Amino acid sequence: MKAPNAYSADCPTRQILDRVGDKWAVLILLLLREDPMRFNRLRRTIEGISQKMLSQVLKSLERDGLVRRRAIATVPVTVEYSITPLGVTLAKAVDPLRDWAECHLKEVLAAQRRYDGQTKAAA
Amino acid sequence: MKAPNAYSADCPTRQILDRVGDKWAVLILLLLREDPMRFNRLRRTIEGISQKMLSQVLKSLERDGLVRRRAIATVPVTVEYSITPLGVTLAKAVDPLRDWAECHLKEVLAAQRRYDGQTKAAA
Repeated sequence: MKAPNAYSADCPTRQILDRVGDKWAVLILLLLREDPMRFNRLRRTIEGISQKMLSQVLKSLERDGLVRRRAIATVPVTVEYSITPLGVTLAKAVDPLRDWAECHLKEVLAAQRRYDGQTKAAA
Repeated sequence: MKAPNAYSADCPTRQILDRVGDKWAVLILLLLREDPMRFNRLRRTIEGISQKMLSQVLKSLERDGLVRRRAIATVPVTVEYSITPLGVTLAKAVDPLRDWAECHLKEVLAAQRRYDGQTKAAA
């Protein structure tokens, strides 16, 4: 078996990077790591996600074995989502990235201001 | 100053997660960490990226201070991209994610087969 090469279009590792690289998926995993949640609460907590997008991302996460969906026989039916043990390992791998974003925010914003200033000066 | 809350739509941390969550950006950073590269070589190495997308992502990475663009006065002009020290810290934060993808690939693929089997059985 060849070593995974994420630069090759048909490499499954790259397909997983696609999923992991979805900001919504990342935000959902980090939230569910705290507590299981119902659909509507997820939707209220994650600002800017549409109902359609949330249900699509949850389905992908469930398909990947990262999130578990549990229907509770209330009237109307309640659906609760929780993170799986596999999902926990992924959330853990995402932590350094979130830390990076929080840590280096100012540097990135400063770089953006510099870039925009230069672009304006050149125009 | 409020603590960063990535679930809020206007949180700059979330904006950075958007960028970082771009699979192309991640692949480009990991490549440039190895060696500076010219545009065309990047394009050939990263399968499936279009010229337009590559130039767009490189511009974003440059604006964020993660990649440096250097025009070399050849005829025609050669443009070389390299990673900045800030970009190196981000690439490092991405490593656990890539390792996760390579490590847990089989589990994810197995979960997908199970899910697709159930979905088919239910249809």
